[in-house]
Amino acid sequence: MLTMEAYLDNSATTRCSEAAKNKMVEALTVDFGNPSSMHMKGVEAEKYVKEAATAIAKTLRCQEKEIVFTSGGTESNNLAIIGTALANQRAGRHIITTSVEHASVKNTMRFLEEEGFEITYLPVDANGEISLEDLKRELREDTILVSMMMVNNEIGALEPIENAGEIIKNHNPATVFHVDAIQAYGKFQIIPKRMHIDLLSVSGHKIHGPKGIGFLYIKEKTKIRPISFGGDQQKGMRSGTINVPGIAGLGVAAAEAYAHLAENAEHMYELKAYFADKLQQIGDVTINGKAGHDSAPQIISASFLGVRSEVLLHSLEDRNIYVSAGSACSSNHPSQSGTLLNIGLDHAHQESTLRFSFCPETTREELDYTYGVLEELLPMLRRYTRH
Amino acid sequence: MLTMEAYLDNSATTRCSEAAKNKMVEALTVDFGNPSSMHMKGVEAEKYVKEAATAIAKTLRCQEKEIVFTSGGTESNNLAIIGTALANQRAGRHIITTSVEHASVKNTMRFLEEEGFEITYLPVDANGEISLEDLKRELREDTILVSMMMVNNEIGALEPIENAGEIIKNHNPATVFHVDAIQAYGKFQIIPKRMHIDLLSVSGHKIHGPKGIGFLYIKEKTKIRPISFGGDQQKGMRSGTINVPGIAGLGVAAAEAYAHLAENAEHMYELKAYFADKLQQIGDVTINGKAGHDSAPQIISASFLGVRSEVLLHSLEDRNIYVSAGSACSSNHPSQSGTLLNIGLDHAHQESTLRFSFCPETTREELDYTYGVLEELLPMLRRYTRH
Repeated sequence: MLTMEAYLDNSATTRCSEAAKNKMVEALTVDFGNPSSMHMKGVEAEKYVKEAATAIAKTLRCQEKEIVFTSGGTESNNLAIIGTALANQRAGRHIITTSVEHASVKNTMRFLEEEGFEITYLPVDANGEISLEDLKRELREDTILVSMMMVNNEIGALEPIENAGEIIKNHNPATVFHVDAIQAYGKFQIIPKRMHIDLLSVSGHKIHGPKGIGFLYIKEKTKIRPISFGGDQQKGMRSGTINVPGIAGLGVAAAEAYAHLAENAEHMYELKAYFADKLQQIGDVTINGKAGHDSAPQIISASFLGVRSEVLLHSLEDRNIYVSAGSACSSNHPSQSGTLLNIGLDHAHQESTLRFSFCPETTREELDYTYGVLEELLPMLRRYTRH
Repeated sequence: MLTMEAYLDNSATTRCSEAAKNKMVEALTVDFGNPSSMHMKGVEAEKYVKEAATAIAKTLRCQEKEIVFTSGGTESNNLAIIGTALANQRAGRHIITTSVEHASVKNTMRFLEEEGFEITYLPVDANGEISLEDLKRELREDTILVSMMMVNNEIGALEPIENAGEIIKNHNPATVFHVDAIQAYGKFQIIPKRMHIDLLSVSGHKIHGPKGIGFLYIKEKTKIRPISFGGDQQKGMRSGTINVPGIAGLGVAAAEAYAHLAENAEHMYELKAYFADKLQQIGDVTINGKAGHDSAPQIISASFLGVRSEVLLHSLEDRNIYVSAGSACSSNHPSQSGTLLNIGLDHAHQESTLRFSFCPETTREELDYTYGVLEELLPMLRRYTRH
């Protein structure tokens, strides 16, 4: 007998694709050399890195040399923000970000605050979007960096990246524009050059690549310093033995994501509309953030008033349905959500919110199954909570 | 017809073991969850991390919670040094290291010098070893950190770690002792607690584990701060989604290395003595550093006077023999060796030095083959160079 399962936590992490895994195995066991070695074993390993850089550069329509591989999204964000701060602190010590950033941006900003930088946190509206007027007003002569996510990891809100980029660069072309695209890459066509983006963070395991690998797109001539030191690999921007298997897997996953970008996104938008519609047939369920193409295709955030999200999460888990409360990227404070608070949800709604996140392989059948289980469980759980 | 091949560059990187690779594949494609997720998929992934931490803690006779996973040796060294400097700068800004450290220590020290720290570089003798008298003399009241490698990556010299640790802690128990054990782990029994070691850096791909993963042993209660910021994974010491496949592979490789530690080391010591003996039958060949058990088992550094190392390296490569000039961990300055200079080699010897590095799978047959090729090539190459 088949057990139905629904993995709806793809914004936490995804299963590594077969092709990505196979390429990694090759790089681990056959062409296992160190690209820094001067002999053929190094040259063979270097080919995997070059191939991945080519594939990724194609997805962003940028140059290969603008891709710096890191250990993942967190390192990319740290490098982008601290590296820019270190390199530009003589020009100014003011930075703008938003109030709904991922912990890897938010906590890096807090570190810089301790170091004497001044950080402005832009508020968001009920849909999780910043206002361009706010951005315009906050830009100063000493603003060296604006850091903003493209897709919010908790509710799938889309920030107005392209317009923000234009405003920033009109104000001062030297102000560095960093975009955390960790939930956006592989779901949207992102062209940094056209969008005025100088730095763009990406993580491998969110797009069916491996964990432990990511990259930072660094536009040619961007003023940034490395934040770790060693053998000067990757032109000195990120020292450490090149993670060939990880990079090779990431390259394959990136190429796969962009080979079917539009149809995958459409598939997920359809699922999202379908599932949102179903959820709203249940009483006292609200969807957070915008719907349709004004939001990210893979994320639905829903509040189930009258049930604690952790209780609902574990009840779903018992039926092999895997979802997230909070953003699931923080191990210590899983339920403490910056976004839900900042879009103005009251405590009761915040505490009853789940995130469902899809991937291109997610099926309508999984959603039907999930809906059926929710329909069955909710009345019971709500009764339990209320008494 | 079989083509003979000799991969003698294991100190640059090793082939990933079958068992480590298999465990990684499992974590990539079956138990692919994010350990930070609250559901079973997260719990299942977390088991791999726990299992690896247990295996590693056993090799060091330490506690699991003292293992912090990083993206590799370079990050481990950066975290150890910058993290200690950040946490202890009020107690003092003086650091002691040696003149023969790997670039990931040396260049991190240079960064701290720019930041106002004072660094003392201990000299080494002709064998690459520091003097404990020098260490004793340089320790000051404001010395917050001593950082020293255990096995030199270029010539295999052993630093007197245990005695150094005793001297440091006798002088001031609060002075942090960091050991770069990247070339030592898996070759020696290292017991941090007995050796007075507070921080110990290890890399996965030097011991038949994957690239892109390593760890820093952090003795309980050591005063150290994180150097990157995010979701507070690993108790806040190293944020970023846990690299489950990498950690799982590293755990398997560590267990394998220590399951046969003594016999593997003995095998390599025998190979080393055998090969050194052969090399010395060729005229004008000198072995750098000590021999036998006063050195690391896996590394032989030899100078072939009258031939440029790069020429010899590529000539060997044509016969499928893979070795290193310099330390091969630096992509930009492969031939610029801190160790060869600091042990007092003249320019001619420095420029003609190769590093041969073994692994437990290295065979006498490979060394015979290499010796045969060297014997054949050297007279020709030397004639060519001299004319």
